[in-house]
Parts: sequence; structure tokens; C-alpha cells
Amino acid sequence: MNGTGAALPGTDLARDTDFAAAAPAIAAVRRGQPLVHCITATVSMNFVANGLLAAGARPMMTETVQEAPVITGIADCLLVNVGTLSTDAMEGIRPTVRQRISDGQPWVLDPTAIGRAPVRTPLARDLLDSHPAVVRGNASEILALTGGKGGRGADSAEGSGAALAAARQVSARTGGAVAVSGSTDLIVGPNNTTRTITRGHPLLTRVTGTGCLLGAMTAACMAACDDLFEAASAATLWMNIAGELAASRAPRPGSFRIALLDALDEVGEVADHMERNAQHEEKS
Amino acid sequence: MNGTGAALPGTDLARDTDFAAAAPAIAAVRRGQPLVHCITATVSMNFVANGLLAAGARPMMTETVQEAPVITGIADCLLVNVGTLSTDAMEGIRPTVRQRISDGQPWVLDPTAIGRAPVRTPLARDLLDSHPAVVRGNASEILALTGGKGGRGADSAEGSGAALAAARQVSARTGGAVAVSGSTDLIVGPNNTTRTITRGHPLLTRVTGTGCLLGAMTAACMAACDDLFEAASAATLWMNIAGELAASRAPRPGSFRIALLDALDEVGEVADHMERNAQHEEKS
Amino acid sequence: MNGTGAALPGTDLARDTDFAAAAPAIAAVRRGQPLVHCITATVSMNFVANGLLAAGARPMMTETVQEAPVITGIADCLLVNVGTLSTDAMEGIRPTVRQRISDGQPWVLDPTAIGRAPVRTPLARDLLDSHPAVVRGNASEILALTGGKGGRGADSAEGSGAALAAARQVSARTGGAVAVSGSTDLIVGPNNTTRTITRGHPLLTRVTGTGCLLGAMTAACMAACDDLFEAASAATLWMNIAGELAASRAPRPGSFRIALLDALDEVGEVADHMERNAQHEEKS
Repeated sequence: MNGTGAALPGTDLARDTDFAAAAPAIAAVRRGQPLVHCITATVSMNFVANGLLAAGARPMMTETVQEAPVITGIADCLLVNVGTLSTDAMEGIRPTVRQRISDGQPWVLDPTAIGRAPVRTPLARDLLDSHPAVVRGNASEILALTGGKGGRGADSAEGSGAALAAARQVSARTGGAVAVSGSTDLIVGPNNTTRTITRGHPLLTRVTGTGCLLGAMTAACMAACDDLFEAASAATLWMNIAGELAASRAPRPGSFRIALLDALDEVGEVADHMERNAQHEEKS
Repeated sequence: MNGTGAALPGTDLARDTDFAAAAPAIAAVRRGQPLVHCITATVSMNFVANGLLAAGARPMMTETVQEAPVITGIADCLLVNVGTLSTDAMEGIRPTVRQRISDGQPWVLDPTAIGRAPVRTPLARDLLDSHPAVVRGNASEILALTGGKGGRGADSAEGSGAALAAARQVSARTGGAVAVSGSTDLIVGPNNTTRTITRGHPLLTRVTGTGCLLGAMTAACMAACDDLFEAASAATLWMNIAGELAASRAPRPGSFRIALLDALDEVGEVADHMERNAQHEEKS
Repeated sequence: MNGTGAALPGTDLARDTDFAAAAPAIAAVRRGQPLVHCITATVSMNFVANGLLAAGARPMMTETVQEAPVITGIADCLLVNVGTLSTDAMEGIRPTVRQRISDGQPWVLDPTAIGRAPVRTPLARDLLDSHPAVVRGNASEILALTGGKGGRGADSAEGSGAALAAARQVSARTGGAVAVSGSTDLIVGPNNTTRTITRGHPLLTRVTGTGCLLGAMTAACMAACDDLFEAASAATLWMNIAGELAASRAPRPGSFRIALLDALDEVGEVADHMERNAQHEEKS
């Protein structure tokens, strides 16, 4: 998702063929305003919540073991990001996932910064048996799910292509989709469907939590779109295109982060208009 | 506080009659720089601290059970927001409130997202017996204090008018004021004084933690103004007018959030100038 | 670091003699992208991570006792900020520092808001025996390390000059440098070398976490520069000059905070260019 950095004028969005494919899922988030329960890294919790709100979804950030399993049922989707850091939230993860599974409700796993971390790495690997509908991570994180040593901190040591076999292995184990983020993003669906997306901007790696937010947006798209391969693709494209727009307006990381939130809103608005126009044309 | 969205030019602020009534309390915060001890939701802790600083107050965010009760005494007011999420902070709430009560110091309760939450809901209801000077919440949260089921996540399922009876019931129990936030805000004082404020902007609901920040600003205004009904009104109006100003300058949620912090500072500055001018005229 | 507020045009940076001395360390951070392990206050964790990224370094925010000591070894430097607030992170501090010491790796101590806090104050004083390479705090915090009562919350009650003797005492105990932040910043090196820096802008005190970020940037500069007195000076100057640039562009606290992150990136870029030009001239 850190792409090549080509700037995309906002006015050209309606003519963007990549975007046309993702627009229905994006518009569905904006209209349906899915409630996304996030157990996610403390460092980027605020950014994830504001990103979901900018995208038109609604965040619920409860993480304690006493409350998270009890109230997860009201949420349209659950994101579990094991970069969560607090012991408190670590304890909340397993019972919350168990509750959703027993209720037949979907969830998304983000194996942030696993590999060397002695608690989170086995936790993330175990959670694969709870069948996350989508797993989203960078190449090092997806490789670490299948035995790799991981990257250094939150950064990937590998390009997404290096994780293709690992992504397929994870998908075979979960029965769900796997999204590998990088300068080229890779989406692997059940039955080995594969899509590559080469969009986005390097500034996305200069803001903490853009990967975490992409995980949360994936959960939002899943809640609004039945096809989980398309949902994962739409979330990735939404973030990438917003990143391109933001970078064309704000070339440094502080203002880029704010422009990115604005662009998530703007891209959602354009998708919504496109869908309304398409429906109007169908009727007439 | 999500109002109707009418834009208010900054230059017109001095002629705004709603604002004139609130200006003394707002100016008093800016001059007195009250220290506000916040035990508040992790997700918006940073935004609350920056919002208090923008308003001219000073934040203190200590929440652990070992430290919060010991050092709360140096703060001019305490905000307890039960949307706090961490088990750690949950344990700190009761002894910290007990300490303040025994020292005869005021505090503010924000029953964020209660209703379905199994720990926070009874906790917030119990805390009413510790006589918070002001309770601030949305309609669903105030209704949940008197037995309602709450909203979905942090959003209200009801307009503030639906919570009038509940707000009066809470006020009768605490002996303090109750502020119900919504597109129309409702302030209920001791002795059933009631005020409605229809200001603000819908973008305030697209940023996480604006309600939490309003709770903290209410605590700041209380520390600077003896009349708690006027303090709660002033805080609500401050946030609403800042929201209008910000929305007139930044129509999307990312930049709106930044413009809101700037506008809190600007509104405080205008109030300060107005009060200085008023005092100067009295003397001459 | 809250200086006098004189605005510095970006174009003049290359002619700034203070900056010329700091440019090599700043450029080394930008090129080396040191991984900084931060155990730091929850309230400003996100800002610290984004500030490090803007400066060109990389953050790792793991704080739990189970993971922090195990993975700290991959980081180029460790920052321990005792304003950390969560009990969880408090428990992680001692074993993580112990691990670094036994591996001969450097670390930085930030005694945020100690003085009245009953857990953090003795903890910070004890940690001096683990020989932090740099201690960074405001005057009240440095005074509190040697027995003073501290400030009110995160603010200092004293100017940095009042902490000179205390800074020397701390430096004698740790064998490292001590940086005292204030409107005049004071850097004390081993062997009692002393430098004062009178730069920066008062708006730096209107944003939560600028001190915490300065601690993290000090750790980043230490990882990239062998001389710890110069590293501490460079970090302080970097923040101060970025603060001046940001204030010249954004006079209110919300947008100032964003402009500050942009300016950290910009100042790093200028330093990088200066170093490349200097190397090019040496070769030709």
C-alpha cells in the first residue's frame, strides 16, 4: 500500500477503473455505517477510530476481558490486532473471538509486528484456527504466521510477493482471504484467487497505524459486502487511493496524515455518488 | 452539540448573544488555567489533553489506583469518564472519587457508552451516589443511568429531549447539573432549571472523543466558575461555537478535528478580550 | 524548548550556526533510521510514534513485561518515560532496562511529571543507578530526581537555570548527559560540560507530549551519534527549530501540532542535504 506515489486528481476518480470495481463496497460502508469492534494497538487506537469515522463507519474500542466478549455481538464486524500491547486487551482477545465464532459472526485478524514477540506470535498463529474471514498484514507478518522470524518492529523485511506461498497456506488453513500489504498489495482469496494492487504512496509508511486502520477498514467492508475477497480488495484500494490523493495535497507526514483522513471521506463520497448515479441509470 | 451546522464568522462572535452569556466562564478558564485531572477513555486521551490545552486549561492524565487518588488533590477538578476501557483505570476510579469527596472537591461524571457494558453501566450508576457536580452524556447514556439500555457503541439512539425526565431524575439524585448532548443540547440544573442550546455542527460526531473533551471542558469551566449550571452551559457553548467555526473552515473530518482545536483557542481568546474590554469600560 | 518565539524562515536554516553544529547528528538519524523502543506515556504514545517517523526514525512501542525485555535488543535505543501511567508498562520498565544494561546497550530516561507521584518518583530515582545515557526532563522533574517536590502535573514550576546543580548531581550519578528543557534549555554533559540553547516557541507547551517526543528524539540521536552530549543537544535543537518553523506557519495549537511534525521532516531533509553537500565538497 506504499505504492509508487503517482498523484491522482480527485476529479479523475470517477474514471479510475480500479476504483469502479471497489466503489460498490465502499459506498455500502458509507451508507450502512457498520459498527466495527476493534481490539487494537494502543498506539494507533485514536487514528483507527477517526479513520473509521472518516470512512463512514463507526468504531467501538472496548477491549477488557469483562466487557469485550459480552458486547461484541452488537458489532457488525470484529477486528483483532495483536499489536495491542496491553496485557488487559491480550486477555480479552480469545474470549471475544470465541464468542463471535459461537454466534457465527465474522472477524478480521491483523498480526501486527509478530515474529520476534514471544506472546503475540503464538497467539496470532493459534487464532488462525478460529477462522478469521480475512487476515491482513505485511509480508513479514504473513510469513511469520507460517514460521518466519518477522520484520524489525512494524516494518516488513520482505516484499509482498515473497509472502504469496505463505498467504496461500494461511488462506487454506482459515478458509478465508489474506491481504498482504506492501508497495504492491496482494489479495489471496479462498480457492487461491489472487489479485495484485499497485497503488498507494510511500508516505503511508511515515504515519503510525495506517496498517492497523487498513485492518479496521477491511472489517468495515466485510460488514457491508458479502464477498470477502472483494471486501478485502475494496478496503486496500480505498486506503491506497486516499493515500495518493493525500500525498498530492500534503507532501510531509504530519499534514499527510490529516489529508488522508479527509481523503477517506472524499473517496467514500465519490463512491456513494457513483453508485447513486448507476442506480438512477438502471431505473431510467 | 452536533447542531444544525450554520457557519459562524469569527468576527461575529463578539455580537453573538449566546456567546456573551458564556464569555465570563470561558475567559476565566483561559486566565486561571485550571488543572483538570482526567481518568478517561484511552482512545481519546490524547485528544482530550490537547483540547484542554487549546482551551487554555492543563491536563493531568494519571489513572492508576496507586497514584490517581494520591495526586488528585492538586487538581482543580476531576473528570471521570467510564469509557476508560483499561482495567487499570477502572480500579482507579472509585478510590479517586472517594478521595475528592472526602476533601470536599468537585468532580464530573461522563457515562460514555454505558447501557450494554456489564462493568461500566453499574459503575456509572453507583457513582451517582458520590454526587458528581455535573453529569454529561448523550441521551442514551443519560437514559441508561436511570435504567435504559443505551445506544450502539458511543452513539445515541435518542434525541436529547427524550432524556429530559431522566436528566431531572439524575439531577435530583446527585444534587448537581446534568448536560445532555445532542443536535439540541439540554442543560438541567439543580432545582430543575433547564436550558436548551441548538448550536454546533454534525462534523462533531465524525471525530472520536468530542464528547469526552466536552466532559473535560465542563470540568475546566467548573473549576473557573462557581455556578455549575452556567459552567456546564459555557462548556457546551464553547464546544458548539468552536465546532461551527471549524466546520466553516474545514468541511472534512480530518482537517475539521485540527480546526476544532484551533477554534477552541480562538474562542477562548475572543472571550478573554471581551472580558478585558468589559472590565475596562466599567472602570472608565 | 518553549523559547522566545522568534520565527525562523526555512530558507535561512542553512545559514543558522546553531543548526550547522547539530546537522550531522540530525542527518545521521534520517539516514540510519534508528529503531527506537519506547515505553512511554499512553496519552502521547501516538504523537511520539508519529514524531519519530517524521524525524526519519522508526518507533517500537511494546511495553508489556512479557515482551518488552525480550525484544528490546533489536532496538538501537530505548526510551523509558515514567509518565507511562499503565500498571502494565510500569512492570515492564525494570526488566527491560536490566536487559539493556546486561547487553551493554544505551537507554534514555524521561522522568515525566514525577515529584508528587508516589510510584513514579521513587522508580525514576532508582533508575538512575541503571546509568541512563541521557536523562531529559523539565526543571521541576530534574530537581525532583534529587529530592524536589516536582511541578503541578506535567508543567515545571521552575526555570531550567534553577536545576543546574541538580542536573550536575544527576550527571555525576549516571555518568551520562542531562537535558533540562525550558524556555532556555540546558544540556549538561559528563565532566560538567554545559550548553544553553535559547530557541523554540511557547506553542510547544500547548501540545501534549512535545517533551515526551523530545525524549524519544534524544534516543534516536544517540543511536546515530556516538557523542551523547552532542546527541542530546542535536535533539533539543531539532525540536526547537521545528517549533519555530511550525509557529511561523500555524499560530494556534491544533494546526501547530501538525506543522511541527511536518517541520521535523523538513529540518531533517535540510540537514541531510547540507551533509551531502559538505561531503561532496570534501571529495572535490
